[in-house]
Amino acid sequence: MNYLDALKKRYSVKKFDAEKSVSSEVLHHILEAAQLSASSLGLQPYNILIIETPEMKEKLIPAFYNPSQISTCSHLIAIVSKKGIGADYLGKYFSYISETREIPLDELNPFKNSISKHMGSLSEEEMLNWSQKQSYIVLGNLMFAAALEEVDTCPMEGFKQELIDEILAINTEKEKVSVTLAIGYRSQDDEFQNLKKVRKPNDKLFKFI
Amino acid sequence: MNYLDALKKRYSVKKFDAEKSVSSEVLHHILEAAQLSASSLGLQPYNILIIETPEMKEKLIPAFYNPSQISTCSHLIAIVSKKGIGADYLGKYFSYISETREIPLDELNPFKNSISKHMGSLSEEEMLNWSQKQSYIVLGNLMFAAALEEVDTCPMEGFKQELIDEILAINTEKEKVSVTLAIGYRSQDDEFQNLKKVRKPNDKLFKFI
Repeated sequence: MNYLDALKKRYSVKKFDAEKSVSSEVLHHILEAAQLSASSLGLQPYNILIIETPEMKEKLIPAFYNPSQISTCSHLIAIVSKKGIGADYLGKYFSYISETREIPLDELNPFKNSISKHMGSLSEEEMLNWSQKQSYIVLGNLMFAAALEEVDTCPMEGFKQELIDEILAINTEKEKVSVTLAIGYRSQDDEFQNLKKVRKPNDKLFKFI
Repeated sequence: MNYLDALKKRYSVKKFDAEKSVSSEVLHHILEAAQLSASSLGLQPYNILIIETPEMKEKLIPAFYNPSQISTCSHLIAIVSKKGIGADYLGKYFSYISETREIPLDELNPFKNSISKHMGSLSEEEMLNWSQKQSYIVLGNLMFAAALEEVDTCPMEGFKQELIDEILAINTEKEKVSVTLAIGYRSQDDEFQNLKKVRKPNDKLFKFI
Protein backbone atom coordinates (compact mmCIF):
# COMPACT_ATOMS: atom_id res chain seq x y z
CA MET A 1 0.00 0.00 0.00
CA ASN A 2 1.11 3.53 -0.80
CA TYR A 3 2.38 5.10 2.44
CA LEU A 4 0.02 8.06 2.28
CA ASP A 5 -2.95 5.73 1.88
CA ALA A 6 -1.67 3.74 4.87
CA LEU A 7 -1.44 6.92 6.98
CA LYS A 8 -4.91 8.00 5.86
CA LYS A 9 -6.33 4.64 6.89
CA ARG A 10 -4.76 4.98 10.35
CA TYR A 11 -6.87 6.27 13.22
CA SER A 12 -6.64 5.97 16.97
CA VAL A 13 -8.46 2.73 17.63
CA LYS A 14 -10.82 2.75 20.59
CA LYS A 15 -11.60 -0.96 20.49
CA PHE A 16 -9.48 -3.71 19.00
CA ASP A 17 -10.61 -7.15 17.90
CA ALA A 18 -9.50 -9.11 20.95
CA GLU A 19 -9.43 -12.34 18.94
CA LYS A 20 -6.72 -11.17 16.56
CA SER A 21 -3.05 -11.10 17.45
CA VAL A 22 -0.21 -9.40 15.64
CA SER A 23 2.13 -12.15 14.49
CA SER A 24 5.60 -12.33 15.94
CA GLU A 25 7.12 -11.67 12.51
CA VAL A 26 5.10 -8.51 11.88
CA LEU A 27 5.68 -7.31 15.44
CA HIS A 28 9.43 -7.67 14.98
CA HIS A 29 9.35 -5.65 11.77
CA ILE A 30 7.49 -2.84 13.51
CA LEU A 31 9.94 -2.96 16.42
CA GLU A 32 12.85 -2.80 14.02
CA ALA A 33 11.48 0.52 12.77
CA ALA A 34 11.62 1.73 16.38
CA GLN A 35 15.18 0.50 16.70
CA LEU A 36 16.14 2.40 13.55
CA SER A 37 14.60 5.66 14.83
CA ALA A 38 16.87 8.66 14.71
CA SER A 39 17.68 10.24 18.06
CA SER A 40 19.57 13.31 19.12
CA LEU A 41 23.33 12.54 19.10
CA GLY A 42 22.38 8.91 18.46
CA LEU A 43 21.89 8.38 22.18
CA GLN A 44 18.55 6.52 22.08
CA PRO A 45 17.70 7.65 25.61
CA TYR A 46 14.94 5.10 26.10
CA ASN A 47 13.98 1.47 26.43
CA ILE A 48 10.92 -0.20 25.00
CA LEU A 49 8.68 -2.60 26.87
CA ILE A 50 6.37 -4.91 24.96
CA ILE A 51 3.53 -6.15 27.11
CA GLU A 52 2.15 -9.32 25.61
CA THR A 53 0.82 -11.53 28.36
CA PRO A 54 -2.90 -11.29 29.22
CA GLU A 55 -1.95 -11.19 32.91
CA MET A 56 0.23 -8.12 32.53
CA LYS A 57 -2.31 -6.33 30.34
CA GLU A 58 -4.98 -7.08 32.95
CA LYS A 59 -2.77 -5.66 35.68
CA LEU A 60 -2.31 -2.43 33.72
CA ILE A 61 -6.01 -1.70 33.19
CA PRO A 62 -6.39 0.40 36.37
CA ALA A 63 -3.47 2.58 35.24
CA PHE A 64 -5.39 3.91 32.21
CA TYR A 65 -8.20 6.44 32.14
CA ASN A 66 -9.68 4.81 29.02
CA PRO A 67 -8.75 1.17 29.26
CA SER A 68 -10.82 -0.33 26.43
CA GLN A 69 -7.74 -0.47 24.21
CA ILE A 70 -5.71 -2.26 26.90
CA SER A 71 -8.22 -5.02 27.34
CA THR A 72 -8.59 -5.65 23.60
CA CYS A 73 -5.18 -4.93 22.04
CA SER A 74 -2.76 -7.58 20.83
CA HIS A 75 0.30 -5.91 22.38
CA LEU A 76 0.86 -2.81 24.44
CA ILE A 77 4.13 -1.00 23.90
CA ALA A 78 5.51 1.34 26.58
CA ILE A 79 8.35 3.71 25.78
CA VAL A 80 10.44 4.32 28.88
CA SER A 81 12.51 7.51 28.76
CA LYS A 82 15.73 8.09 30.64
CA LYS A 83 15.79 10.98 33.09
CA GLY A 84 19.47 11.53 32.53
CA ILE A 85 22.52 10.41 30.59
CA GLY A 86 25.29 9.62 33.04
CA ALA A 87 29.00 9.01 32.47
CA ASP A 88 28.40 5.27 32.60
CA TYR A 89 25.77 5.30 29.83
CA LEU A 90 27.92 7.59 27.71
CA GLY A 91 30.98 5.39 28.23
CA LYS A 92 29.12 2.28 27.10
CA TYR A 93 27.68 4.13 24.12
CA PHE A 94 31.12 5.20 22.93
CA SER A 95 32.60 1.74 23.47
CA TYR A 96 29.79 0.41 21.31
CA ILE A 97 30.42 2.99 18.57
CA SER A 98 34.12 2.18 18.69
CA GLU A 99 33.40 -1.54 18.36
CA THR A 100 30.73 -1.22 15.65
CA ARG A 101 32.61 1.21 13.48
CA GLU A 102 36.09 -0.10 14.29
CA ILE A 103 37.32 3.33 15.33
CA PRO A 104 39.79 3.57 18.27
CA LEU A 105 38.02 4.97 21.35
CA ASP A 106 40.61 7.74 21.62
CA GLU A 107 39.60 9.16 18.28
CA LEU A 108 36.04 9.51 19.53
CA ASN A 109 37.02 11.48 22.61
CA PRO A 110 36.42 14.97 21.22
CA PHE A 111 32.84 13.98 20.28
CA LYS A 112 32.33 12.26 23.62
CA ASN A 113 33.61 15.27 25.55
CA SER A 114 31.39 17.65 23.67
CA ILE A 115 28.30 15.51 24.37
CA SER A 116 29.29 15.17 27.99
CA LYS A 117 29.68 18.94 28.30
CA HIS A 118 26.33 19.53 26.60
CA MET A 119 24.54 17.02 28.84
CA GLY A 120 26.14 18.54 31.90
CA SER A 121 24.70 21.93 30.95
CA LEU A 122 21.10 20.68 31.04
CA SER A 123 18.91 20.76 34.14
CA GLU A 124 17.13 17.53 35.17
CA GLU A 125 13.92 18.91 33.70
CA GLU A 126 15.57 19.84 30.39
CA MET A 127 17.23 16.44 30.16
CA LEU A 128 13.94 14.60 30.65
CA ASN A 129 12.17 16.80 28.09
CA TRP A 130 14.94 16.14 25.61
CA SER A 131 14.75 12.44 26.23
CA GLN A 132 10.96 12.36 25.94
CA LYS A 133 11.07 14.20 22.64
CA GLN A 134 13.38 11.50 21.25
CA SER A 135 10.90 8.91 22.53
CA TYR A 136 8.17 10.49 20.44
CA ILE A 137 10.18 9.96 17.26
CA VAL A 138 10.07 6.28 18.20
CA LEU A 139 6.32 6.57 18.72
CA GLY A 140 6.00 8.12 15.25
CA ASN A 141 8.07 5.35 13.68
CA LEU A 142 6.07 2.64 15.42
CA MET A 143 2.76 4.06 14.20
CA PHE A 144 4.09 4.61 10.68
CA ALA A 145 5.54 1.10 10.38
CA ALA A 146 2.38 -0.43 11.85
CA ALA A 147 0.26 1.46 9.30
CA LEU A 148 2.42 0.04 6.50
CA GLU A 149 1.95 -3.43 7.97
CA GLU A 150 -1.82 -2.79 8.15
CA VAL A 151 -1.65 -3.09 11.90
CA ASP A 152 -3.84 -0.65 13.85
CA THR A 153 -2.66 1.48 16.72
CA CYS A 154 -3.72 3.81 19.50
CA PRO A 155 -1.13 6.07 21.14
CA MET A 156 -2.02 6.77 24.77
CA GLU A 157 -0.74 9.41 27.17
CA GLY A 158 -3.72 9.11 29.49
CA PHE A 159 -2.31 6.97 32.24
CA LYS A 160 -1.60 7.37 35.94
CA GLN A 161 2.14 7.95 35.99
CA GLU A 162 2.97 6.53 39.40
CA LEU A 163 0.79 3.49 38.97
CA ILE A 164 2.06 2.52 35.53
CA ASP A 165 5.67 3.00 36.60
CA GLU A 166 5.02 0.84 39.65
CA ILE A 167 3.28 -1.98 37.77
CA LEU A 168 6.01 -2.06 35.15
CA ALA A 169 8.73 -2.00 37.83
CA ILE A 170 10.36 1.12 36.41
CA ASN A 171 13.37 2.44 38.29
CA THR A 172 11.83 5.90 38.70
CA GLU A 173 15.05 7.46 39.87
CA LYS A 174 16.41 6.95 36.39
CA GLU A 175 13.46 6.69 34.03
CA LYS A 176 9.72 6.95 33.49
CA VAL A 177 7.08 5.73 31.06
CA SER A 178 6.62 8.55 28.54
CA VAL A 179 3.96 7.22 26.27
CA THR A 180 2.28 3.96 25.35
CA LEU A 181 1.01 2.49 22.12
CA ALA A 182 -1.61 -0.22 21.84
CA ILE A 183 -1.38 -2.28 18.67
CA GLY A 184 -3.66 -4.87 17.15
CA TYR A 185 -6.48 -5.03 14.63
CA ARG A 186 -9.49 -2.72 14.76
CA SER A 187 -12.76 -4.20 15.88
CA GLN A 188 -15.34 -3.99 13.12
CA ASP A 189 -17.74 -2.37 15.56
CA ASP A 190 -15.37 0.43 16.59
CA GLU A 191 -17.42 3.29 15.13
CA PHE A 192 -14.48 5.71 15.26
CA GLN A 193 -13.03 4.13 12.11
CA ASN A 194 -15.91 5.64 10.12
CA LEU A 195 -15.30 9.24 11.17
CA LYS A 196 -13.66 11.56 8.67
CA LYS A 197 -10.08 12.43 9.54
CA VAL A 198 -9.72 15.97 10.89
CA ARG A 199 -6.45 17.65 9.95
CA LYS A 200 -5.54 21.31 9.52
CA PRO A 201 -5.76 22.25 5.85
CA ASN A 202 -2.52 23.08 4.02
CA ASP A 203 -2.87 26.84 4.31
CA LYS A 204 -3.23 26.65 8.11
CA LEU A 205 -0.47 24.09 8.67
CA PHE A 206 2.23 25.06 6.16
CA LYS A 207 3.95 28.27 5.25
CA PHE A 208 6.55 28.47 2.48
CA ILE A 209 9.16 31.15 2.89
CA MET B 1 11.89 -0.04 -1.44
CA ASN B 2 11.00 -2.06 1.66
CA TYR B 3 10.47 0.39 4.55
CA LEU B 4 13.09 -1.21 6.78
CA ASP B 5 15.66 -0.97 4.01
CA ALA B 6 14.71 2.69 3.57
CA LEU B 7 15.19 3.34 7.30
CA LYS B 8 18.53 1.50 7.26
CA LYS B 9 19.72 3.66 4.38
CA ARG B 10 18.78 6.82 6.26
CA TYR B 11 21.47 8.68 8.18
CA SER B 12 21.87 12.24 9.39
CA VAL B 13 23.42 13.92 6.39
CA LYS B 14 26.22 16.33 7.13
CA LYS B 15 26.56 17.66 3.60
CA PHE B 16 23.92 17.65 0.88
CA ASP B 17 24.47 17.91 -2.86
CA ALA B 18 23.68 21.60 -3.29
CA GLU B 19 22.92 21.09 -6.98
CA LYS B 20 20.00 18.74 -6.37
CA SER B 21 16.55 19.94 -5.33
CA VAL B 22 13.64 17.93 -4.00
CA SER B 23 10.85 18.26 -6.56
CA SER B 24 7.66 20.03 -5.57
CA GLU B 25 5.68 16.81 -6.03
CA VAL B 26 7.91 14.75 -3.74
CA LEU B 27 8.07 17.57 -1.18
CA HIS B 28 4.28 17.70 -1.05
CA HIS B 29 4.04 13.96 -0.47
CA ILE B 30 6.46 14.22 2.43
CA LEU B 31 4.55 17.17 3.86
CA GLU B 32 1.30 15.24 3.57
CA ALA B 33 2.80 12.61 5.87
CA ALA B 34 3.41 15.42 8.38
CA GLN B 35 -0.16 16.60 8.00
CA LEU B 36 -1.42 13.08 8.66
CA SER B 37 0.67 12.77 11.86
CA ALA B 38 -1.24 11.69 14.92
CA SER B 39 -1.29 14.19 17.79
CA SER B 40 -2.62 14.12 21.31
CA LEU B 41 -6.39 14.83 21.24
CA GLY B 42 -5.97 15.61 17.53
CA LEU B 43 -4.92 19.15 18.39
CA GLN B 44 -1.88 19.44 16.09
CA PRO B 45 -0.33 22.10 18.34
CA TYR B 46 2.18 23.27 15.73
CA ASN B 47 2.78 24.93 12.39
CA ILE B 48 5.34 23.96 9.82
CA LEU B 49 7.59 26.38 7.97
CA ILE B 50 9.26 25.31 4.76
CA ILE B 51 12.28 27.46 3.97
CA GLU B 52 13.02 27.21 0.28
CA THR B 53 14.56 30.47 -0.90
CA PRO B 54 18.37 30.71 -0.98
CA GLU B 55 18.09 34.14 0.68
CA MET B 56 16.21 32.81 3.71
CA LYS B 57 18.53 29.80 4.06
CA GLU B 58 21.51 32.16 3.92
CA LYS B 59 19.97 34.33 6.63
CA LEU B 60 19.53 31.29 8.88
CA ILE B 61 23.15 30.11 8.73
CA PRO B 62 24.30 32.10 11.78
CA ALA B 63 21.49 30.53 13.82
CA PHE B 64 22.99 27.02 13.55
CA TYR B 65 26.02 25.61 15.34
CA ASN B 66 26.76 23.28 12.42
CA PRO B 67 25.48 25.08 9.36
CA SER B 68 26.88 22.88 6.55
CA GLN B 69 23.44 21.28 6.10
CA ILE B 70 21.72 24.65 5.86
CA SER B 71 23.96 25.88 3.10
CA THR B 72 23.61 22.70 1.03
CA CYS B 73 20.08 21.38 1.65
CA SER B 74 17.23 21.62 -0.79
CA HIS B 75 14.67 22.70 1.83
CA LEU B 76 14.81 23.38 5.53
CA ILE B 77 11.71 22.52 7.53
CA ALA B 78 11.08 24.18 10.90
CA ILE B 79 8.43 22.81 13.24
CA VAL B 80 6.98 25.61 15.33
CA SER B 81 5.29 24.44 18.53
CA LYS B 82 2.50 26.27 20.34
CA LYS B 83 3.19 27.35 23.90
CA GLY B 84 -0.46 27.01 24.81
CA ILE B 85 -3.88 26.02 23.56
CA GLY B 86 -6.28 28.89 24.25
CA ALA B 87 -10.08 29.03 24.10
CA ASP B 88 -9.89 30.60 20.65
CA TYR B 89 -7.77 27.76 19.18
CA LEU B 90 -9.99 25.16 20.80
CA GLY B 91 -13.14 26.86 19.52
CA LYS B 92 -11.86 26.86 15.95
CA TYR B 93 -10.76 23.26 16.26
CA PHE B 94 -14.18 22.13 17.35
CA SER B 95 -15.94 24.17 14.66
CA TYR B 96 -13.70 22.45 12.16
CA ILE B 97 -14.49 18.97 13.56
CA SER B 98 -18.18 19.81 13.48
CA GLU B 99 -17.95 20.95 9.87
CA THR B 100 -15.75 18.06 8.66
CA ARG B 101 -17.70 15.31 10.37
CA GLU B 102 -21.11 16.95 10.08
CA ILE B 103 -21.75 16.66 13.79
CA PRO B 104 -23.63 19.49 15.56
CA LEU B 105 -21.24 21.55 17.69
CA ASP B 106 -23.41 20.95 20.76
CA GLU B 107 -22.81 17.22 20.61
CA LEU B 108 -19.09 17.84 20.79
CA ASN B 109 -19.32 19.95 23.93
CA PRO B 110 -18.56 17.22 26.46
CA PHE B 111 -15.33 16.36 24.61
CA LYS B 112 -14.47 20.05 24.23
CA ASN B 113 -15.06 20.73 27.92
CA SER B 114 -12.93 17.81 29.00
CA ILE B 115 -10.03 18.96 26.78
CA SER B 116 -10.44 22.51 28.03
CA LYS B 117 -10.32 21.31 31.63
CA HIS B 118 -7.27 19.15 30.96
CA MET B 119 -5.42 22.00 29.22
CA GLY B 120 -6.32 24.34 32.07
CA SER B 121 -4.68 21.95 34.53
CA LEU B 122 -1.28 22.13 32.82
CA SER B 123 1.41 24.68 33.70
CA GLU B 124 2.95 26.72 30.87
CA GLU B 125 5.99 24.46 31.03
CA GLU B 126 3.93 21.28 30.87
CA MET B 127 1.89 22.63 27.98
CA LEU B 128 5.00 23.46 25.96
CA ASN B 129 6.54 20.05 26.66
CA TRP B 130 3.33 18.35 25.57
CA SER B 131 3.21 20.39 22.41
CA GLN B 132 6.86 19.75 21.60
CA LYS B 133 6.39 16.02 22.02
CA GLN B 134 3.61 16.10 19.42
CA SER B 135 5.95 18.03 17.14
CA TYR B 136 8.46 15.19 17.32
CA ILE B 137 5.88 12.74 15.96
CA VAL B 138 5.74 15.07 12.96
CA LEU B 139 9.53 15.01 12.79
CA GLY B 140 9.42 11.20 12.80
CA ASN B 141 6.82 11.11 10.04
CA LEU B 142 8.78 13.57 7.91
CA MET B 143 11.97 11.51 8.18
CA PHE B 144 10.14 8.24 7.55
CA ALA B 145 8.27 9.55 4.49
CA ALA B 146 11.45 11.16 3.14
CA ALA B 147 13.31 7.84 3.52
CA LEU B 148 10.56 6.11 1.52
CA GLU B 149 10.89 8.80 -1.16
CA GLU B 150 14.69 8.27 -1.13
CA VAL B 151 15.13 11.83 0.06
CA ASP B 152 17.86 12.37 2.64
CA THR B 153 17.43 14.26 5.88
CA CYS B 154 19.19 15.72 8.88
CA PRO B 155 17.20 16.58 11.99
CA MET B 156 18.76 19.48 13.87
CA GLU B 157 18.20 20.74 17.41
CA GLY B 158 21.49 22.64 17.52
CA PHE B 159 20.33 26.17 16.85
CA LYS B 160 20.30 29.44 18.75
CA GLN B 161 16.72 29.66 19.94
CA GLU B 162 16.34 33.42 20.09
CA LEU B 163 18.05 34.02 16.80
CA ILE B 164 16.11 31.43 14.82
CA ASP B 165 12.80 32.62 16.27
CA GLU B 166 13.72 36.20 15.38
CA ILE B 167 14.80 35.42 11.80
CA LEU B 168 11.66 33.37 11.19
CA ALA B 169 9.47 36.09 12.73
CA ILE B 170 7.97 33.72 15.28
CA ASN B 171 5.49 35.22 17.72
CA THR B 172 7.45 34.04 20.74
CA GLU B 173 4.68 34.84 23.17
CA LYS B 174 2.69 32.03 21.61
CA GLU B 175 5.15 29.66 19.97
CA LYS B 176 8.77 28.65 19.36
CA VAL B 177 10.80 26.64 16.87
CA SER B 178 11.13 23.15 18.40
CA VAL B 179 13.21 21.34 15.86
CA THR B 180 14.33 21.64 12.27
CA LEU B 181 14.86 19.14 9.48
CA ALA B 182 17.08 19.72 6.48
CA ILE B 183 16.09 17.68 3.43
CA GLY B 184 17.77 17.09 0.09
CA TYR B 185 20.10 14.55 -1.48
CA ARG B 186 23.31 13.40 0.15
CA SER B 187 26.56 14.64 -1.32
CA GLN B 188 28.65 11.76 -2.62
CA ASP B 189 31.60 13.07 -0.62
CA ASP B 190 29.75 13.12 2.72
CA GLU B 191 31.82 10.44 4.41
CA PHE B 192 29.24 9.89 7.16
CA GLN B 193 27.11 7.83 4.77
CA ASN B 194 29.75 5.09 4.90
CA LEU B 195 29.74 4.67 8.67
CA LYS B 196 27.95 1.65 10.09
CA LYS B 197 24.69 2.49 11.84
CA VAL B 198 24.97 2.33 15.62
CA ARG B 199 21.78 1.16 17.34
CA LYS B 200 21.22 -0.61 20.63
CA PRO B 201 20.92 -4.34 20.06
CA ASN B 202 17.54 -5.97 20.66
CA ASP B 203 18.35 -7.26 24.13
CA LYS B 204 19.33 -3.78 25.34
CA LEU B 205 16.44 -1.94 23.71
CA PHE B 206 13.48 -4.31 24.08
CA LYS B 207 11.99 -6.24 26.93
CA PHE B 208 9.00 -8.54 26.50
CA ILE B 209 6.79 -8.96 29.53
